[in-house]
Amino acid sequence: MSSFLPKSIQNLIDEFSRLPGIGPKTAERLAIHLLHSPHTRIKDLGDSVLNMKDGVEFCSRCWHLADQDPCNICSDQERQQGTICVVENVLDVVAIEKSRSFRGVYHVLHGVLSPIDGIGPEDLKLYDLEKRVKEGGIKEIILAVNPSVEGETTALYIGKMLKPYEGVRVTRIARGLPVGGELGYADESTISRAMTGRMGVE
Amino acid sequence: MSSFLPKSIQNLIDEFSRLPGIGPKTAERLAIHLLHSPHTRIKDLGDSVLNMKDGVEFCSRCWHLADQDPCNICSDQERQQGTICVVENVLDVVAIEKSRSFRGVYHVLHGVLSPIDGIGPEDLKLYDLEKRVKEGGIKEIILAVNPSVEGETTALYIGKMLKPYEGVRVTRIARGLPVGGELGYADESTISRAMTGRMGVE
Repeated sequence: MSSFLPKSIQNLIDEFSRLPGIGPKTAERLAIHLLHSPHTRIKDLGDSVLNMKDGVEFCSRCWHLADQDPCNICSDQERQQGTICVVENVLDVVAIEKSRSFRGVYHVLHGVLSPIDGIGPEDLKLYDLEKRVKEGGIKEIILAVNPSVEGETTALYIGKMLKPYEGVRVTRIARGLPVGGELGYADESTISRAMTGRMGVE
Repeated sequence: MSSFLPKSIQNLIDEFSRLPGIGPKTAERLAIHLLHSPHTRIKDLGDSVLNMKDGVEFCSRCWHLADQDPCNICSDQERQQGTICVVENVLDVVAIEKSRSFRGVYHVLHGVLSPIDGIGPEDLKLYDLEKRVKEGGIKEIILAVNPSVEGETTALYIGKMLKPYEGVRVTRIARGLPVGGELGYADESTISRAMTGRMGVE
């Protein structure tokens, strides 16, 4: 399709359109908004995109994104290092931290078991979780995976995997979350309720 | 608020959040999506933001955004240079061009009259429009401003401004039900406009 805008602006619109959830109309509006913004705003946005990976690494304990290894959370001795909350991805950590309902540490799986998509245990950080439990000092594993089919499967798998480790309680955050909903979209008090209402996995 | 993500990623989330229509959750999702994208995607987006104004200027005739002055549309002799469609902003030009329903030229006002916001005739490209009409050769001015209060005011103003120029027809694009729209869902003033603007069935 021929463009009705200058090439450099059309380029930006095309790039915006490739982002998830941003359609062509929204992309146009964003580009025109930026065009009318001060030069420093444009530079700040462009630079922050280009520099987004600077100094970013994964924590080798919990696999959360971090500025250093181990991450702030894992190296915080005021947090309960014996309580691990298992989540699917880094945004789940952010959501739970914002709810201020948890003072333990995390373990980010980076996905869930999904045979249909060919995602098995070896594609997730599952064995790293078992390793942490094996090292001892863990009292409770809170499963905060999403209540989807894949999430349930993953929870069951972890429950089985950790069964041999006596003294480690495996719990699940309560179904305060609507079924089919996603943790990252839940409001803070819902997450907080779900956290306090956690129950044992049989 | 303290951040739960590395600084460079939080920077990007903050920048995304400052864009219109993008809330903090969407910004987080966009940033994490980019983090998992190939390096070239990130570079393409960052560069296209930084370079968005390269070679962009306004056409000194119609005030549309252009790669050169006059713009492609104004310098296209196959288009009816005597028919000017007056729009509020550059995205309106893009929308009309995409509809392929107009073969004349444009005049971008860059806003509408809005006394409340302190926007008067001198803040828009109104006098430039009159200048084009004064220069002669214009047969029709089609007002395609939005049907808002400010749009109506602007249309009335232009109608008055161009009254002295005989032989120049001033028209307004039709307002009514959108194609695919349903009567039951339309608001009252749209139905009212559609009713008064009715046309004979040939």
